[in-house]
Amino acid sequence: QWMMLDWKPRRSDMLVDPFGIGKIVQDGFIFRQNFSIRSYEIGADGTASIETLMNHLQETALNHVMTAGLLDAGFGATPAMAKKNLIWVVTRMQVVVDRYPTWNDVVNVETWVSASGKNGMRRDWLIRNAKTGETLTRATSLWVMMNKLTRRLSKMPDEVRQEIEPYFLNSDPVVDEDSRKLPKLGDSTADYVRRGLTPRWSDLDVNQHVNNVKYIGWILESAPQQILESHQLASVTLEYRRECGRDSVLQSLTAVSDKDIGNLVNLGSVECQHLLRLEEGAEVLRARTEWRPKDAHNFGNVGPIPAEST
Amino acid sequence: QWMMLDWKPRRSDMLVDPFGIGKIVQDGFIFRQNFSIRSYEIGADGTASIETLMNHLQETALNHVMTAGLLDAGFGATPAMAKKNLIWVVTRMQVVVDRYPTWNDVVNVETWVSASGKNGMRRDWLIRNAKTGETLTRATSLWVMMNKLTRRLSKMPDEVRQEIEPYFLNSDPVVDEDSRKLPKLGDSTADYVRRGLTPRWSDLDVNQHVNNVKYIGWILESAPQQILESHQLASVTLEYRRECGRDSVLQSLTAVSDKDIGNLVNLGSVECQHLLRLEEGAEVLRARTEWRPKDAHNFGNVGPIPAEST
Repeated sequence: QWMMLDWKPRRSDMLVDPFGIGKIVQDGFIFRQNFSIRSYEIGADGTASIETLMNHLQETALNHVMTAGLLDAGFGATPAMAKKNLIWVVTRMQVVVDRYPTWNDVVNVETWVSASGKNGMRRDWLIRNAKTGETLTRATSLWVMMNKLTRRLSKMPDEVRQEIEPYFLNSDPVVDEDSRKLPKLGDSTADYVRRGLTPRWSDLDVNQHVNNVKYIGWILESAPQQILESHQLASVTLEYRRECGRDSVLQSLTAVSDKDIGNLVNLGSVECQHLLRLEEGAEVLRARTEWRPKDAHNFGNVGPIPAEST
Repeated sequence: QWMMLDWKPRRSDMLVDPFGIGKIVQDGFIFRQNFSIRSYEIGADGTASIETLMNHLQETALNHVMTAGLLDAGFGATPAMAKKNLIWVVTRMQVVVDRYPTWNDVVNVETWVSASGKNGMRRDWLIRNAKTGETLTRATSLWVMMNKLTRRLSKMPDEVRQEIEPYFLNSDPVVDEDSRKLPKLGDSTADYVRRGLTPRWSDLDVNQHVNNVKYIGWILESAPQQILESHQLASVTLEYRRECGRDSVLQSLTAVSDKDIGNLVNLGSVECQHLLRLEEGAEVLRARTEWRPKDAHNFGNVGPIPAEST
């Protein structure tokens, strides 16, 4: 799972690009990488899936810290973090998709970090069409420190702040914060419940944890088929509450703001609330999704399709 | 699903690389593309998953036909194929993995097509470490023509053969054919059965079919955990028999050649037989997998891991 990132500052004169996978720009604050959208990253809509976009966010975050000199030191946190057994965990993530890229589009992803309150870090991303410059996706995330032995959240020690502050860009979030509380769903408030969801072997990362990009797939498992077909995911807000491992059995719950599902085709935008929980009840993730009718944005999204026509 | 490829020949002077995604080399017969292995393409072993490798096979096959001038003509088959409503479907696939790449390795994929009997086409792939040249994976596949209206297999009409023959490379398969028959498994012959497998929304392609790379994930769902943990997939042979769609409910069956599973840790190589079938009984896929002990090949496969140490 990529919730856990360690961070080891290096001087900006060492910010090179040894792997040809991206580079740090703008005085060392912004990491930039291009991706060509591959055929297998495209979903039933004919466009890149939300998982694909979130995979690219994950990849650039990792390449950013690696390029900044982190990962060649093994699993090194900053020296002060390592001394205190601290790691980064993501607690909240917000992704707004203005337009989905299609097969063989080249997208340009930029990411940077900022301070967030006294104890946190914010990471933002901006995805553009590399050819036209059009903004496709904006995303922001909040990170705090966790003691990896006790698994409890921790304040940011002063020594750590001094180490990482040089990397913080002083900027507003690239997405206006969705500050509305995410309600707790239950059996009585959910419209759709999908039970018995289990990780596939391929969902696991090297720590036998579920990669947290996979959670979005489980959320969509309880979203009504009608919405998936008639609407396009416009934004998602995720609140991570708990890790899950390979033996976890999950339930996915969805409540739809407009209950007239039968008439969804005629609806405008739709909002859903979601919960992923373990079968024994513990909350794994709360989420909110917003959907717009496909017609509103599908111009330009139908490219050549690598299969027969239907 | 990428079983269906259409094919429209172009003159070799048009074999350009408009997308920067790969190129045709060696007198127009071989398509070559590099991939950098991304963090989210790595599985629980810390190496690229078999799905990732097969995704790269799919991507290069599509880019090959696109670069050869196919897909800019919409869903065009060759003129003669289009006239007769014919499409390509893959019937058999064999992948041999000598070594799995790790995060940020760059792999070089080459693919080409050859004649196969009177009515078929063979597509081969060779994956190398782009830096060292070491062969990592070899794969071969067999394709035949299907009438897309009747869904029945078809002979290759002479007009079609004349169109596509100029693209055939006269070569032996890159993998020795596993000509042993794949046995039909049943409830009495399988050691492990996993029921109630359903496609996730993200498993579907634009035709609402399951992308056939996903089948390998379902096969592994009934492979015993002990093998997944102690062994590494060394080769897989897949025999595609039927498409499945979004409402399919599948069962995954596995039989292990050496039944002393409890003692697997001490075993050498292991061979398994697999079947994917619809709940109502129709066979979707037969497969054989071969596994080698992880120790035999895990040197060099442990790279820097983007997460905490355990």
